[in-house]
Amino acid sequence: MIPVSLRWVGDVAGHLELIDQTLLPAELSWLPCRDVPTVVEAIKSLRVRGAPAIGIAGAYGMALAAGEAIRGRMAAGHARAHVLARAEELATARPTAVNLRWAVERCVGMIDRLPSDADAAALATALLAEADAIHDEDRRLCEAIGLHGAAVLPEGGVLTHCNTGALATGGAGTALAAITTAWDSGRRFEVFADETRPLFQGARLTAWELVQRGIPVTVLCDSAAAHLLKTGRVAACIVGADRITANGDTANKIGTYGLAILAEAHGVPFFVAAPSSTFDLSLDTGAEIPIEERAAAEVLRPLGTAAAPDNAKAFNPAFDVTPARLISGIITEHGVISPVTREQIHLVLRARSLGNSP
Amino acid sequence: MIPVSLRWVGDVAGHLELIDQTLLPAELSWLPCRDVPTVVEAIKSLRVRGAPAIGIAGAYGMALAAGEAIRGRMAAGHARAHVLARAEELATARPTAVNLRWAVERCVGMIDRLPSDADAAALATALLAEADAIHDEDRRLCEAIGLHGAAVLPEGGVLTHCNTGALATGGAGTALAAITTAWDSGRRFEVFADETRPLFQGARLTAWELVQRGIPVTVLCDSAAAHLLKTGRVAACIVGADRITANGDTANKIGTYGLAILAEAHGVPFFVAAPSSTFDLSLDTGAEIPIEERAAAEVLRPLGTAAAPDNAKAFNPAFDVTPARLISGIITEHGVISPVTREQIHLVLRARSLGNSP
Repeated sequence: MIPVSLRWVGDVAGHLELIDQTLLPAELSWLPCRDVPTVVEAIKSLRVRGAPAIGIAGAYGMALAAGEAIRGRMAAGHARAHVLARAEELATARPTAVNLRWAVERCVGMIDRLPSDADAAALATALLAEADAIHDEDRRLCEAIGLHGAAVLPEGGVLTHCNTGALATGGAGTALAAITTAWDSGRRFEVFADETRPLFQGARLTAWELVQRGIPVTVLCDSAAAHLLKTGRVAACIVGADRITANGDTANKIGTYGLAILAEAHGVPFFVAAPSSTFDLSLDTGAEIPIEERAAAEVLRPLGTAAAPDNAKAFNPAFDVTPARLISGIITEHGVISPVTREQIHLVLRARSLGNSP
Repeated sequence: MIPVSLRWVGDVAGHLELIDQTLLPAELSWLPCRDVPTVVEAIKSLRVRGAPAIGIAGAYGMALAAGEAIRGRMAAGHARAHVLARAEELATARPTAVNLRWAVERCVGMIDRLPSDADAAALATALLAEADAIHDEDRRLCEAIGLHGAAVLPEGGVLTHCNTGALATGGAGTALAAITTAWDSGRRFEVFADETRPLFQGARLTAWELVQRGIPVTVLCDSAAAHLLKTGRVAACIVGADRITANGDTANKIGTYGLAILAEAHGVPFFVAAPSSTFDLSLDTGAEIPIEERAAAEVLRPLGTAAAPDNAKAFNPAFDVTPARLISGIITEHGVISPVTREQIHLVLRARSLGNSP
């Protein structure tokens, strides 16, 4: 079975459904989202997560905002103001991944192109079409990233961090798509998944996706990665990204930065896989990326059980920033950026500005 | 409150009690051990853990073996054979820490010095005295390590891994004793504890000990250490050791090796604190240290709750080996070995062979 993360159900009056990823792997449960607050809550609570997937959820959230305006019988001007207010709620549901704001702003751009007297129904039709387009594009981006990634992965075991598969995107994934594409092409190799504390996305989601696909997977504690790398069983590390700045610095799930240092120390190439929408060229370096701090309970109460005494504090950044110099290549839908320099990034992203989608 | 890990109750016919550390921090429960199988199970199940503490538990286990011989009314030769057989069971309960075998062999040495017709009661008296001596010595070693460690710790925050405090030893601890000794001397600094997957000894035990002592502690996921180091809030890392080879390579809790690489990458000194009994000069380098692999469930079912799907495998080494070149200094009861070279190790350990205990 090939998993998916979310889907739109019905026509313009329909709703978004997404897998509640907080319940995996114990339970596969679809959460219906009929209004924006439900989508925002799902994003904040990580029921849907992964930079591309929350971008798509945000875009469908815009269609739901127009649906709210229809149900509220809002006049055209009121409807537009309502949807734009919802846009800001959606775009700020999580701060680090740039895809969320990118997707929502793309929907806002669609609204801007509609006549000023477009009513709620016209907004809904246009926004659902835009969200569907973003979703469809993401499927194609994932496929292209999977192919480019499979081509660049060396023979041998692969170690990944967090979840970057179907659950994190609108298609087959980013880093995990590289792994599954290589596997589906007939190559055989060990796949290692960091469990990815604090929320265990590697153990819960990546391992689940691979098991669904019949690909053997070995889970390890994040802290065992150095020892694993020393054994020589890992030929490459590959991870996703939540935001990449103009110089190639990459924000991704906490633990990515440390893994990149360990990979370099063992001479193992370290790849990032992400659609070009992950680049935020308005930021010069990773020092400018806001890092989300999440609740202490994620650390102190793993899977809901207290691990630490009362009165212990927690340090819980959700992301860290890997400097470009530690990244062997960034795999995009347009190809692999390597070496990771401003110039190479500029060259590859020009394809995006030329509308050269795969 | 200053915690302790274990204690002997009563006279030569008495028994060992130890805190069942698997129940902390939720429950403080003393486990009575009246025979060797109970001690072996407690060591294997990590009810008692920490290289020095399991050494002391092994020594008291030898006294319990003699008690078994008394209760079994064994003749002198039979009693001695029984105790020596129990010695092997105790020494092999866990493979990586050298202190366990060291302590049990010290007790065997005591038996060897007794007359060949010594009966079970004589064995028990001598073995309890030897175990008490090992325990008393460990208290003094911890105090000396704490003082040497506090002196060498720079001003600023300290990051530690796993648990190396009172629960891991017969006294105040090793690495954690350096931290608490510095604190008790009036210095104030941030204390960070890696949670230490898979068994959360940092969150469960180190944080608990520090809270008991009234020292503020911040717990982090192991994978957040790189980001924390980058913030500049950590002036030094300090950890314990399970075995140190002749060249200074150090086996310790899984994750130590990775942390040492991260510390070096950020220019943060990395200290190991351990009694000289942790050195195994029969091994030339860390490549010769056996690394215990533990059950997959420790990874796949954190705190007893499934995190991964059925069919996922696990990679679960309990220890890793940090090469000497990554260690700024090894803090022993005789002083700090720095730089960590064969020559410096030899010089400091000569004090041990001269019986120059602190």
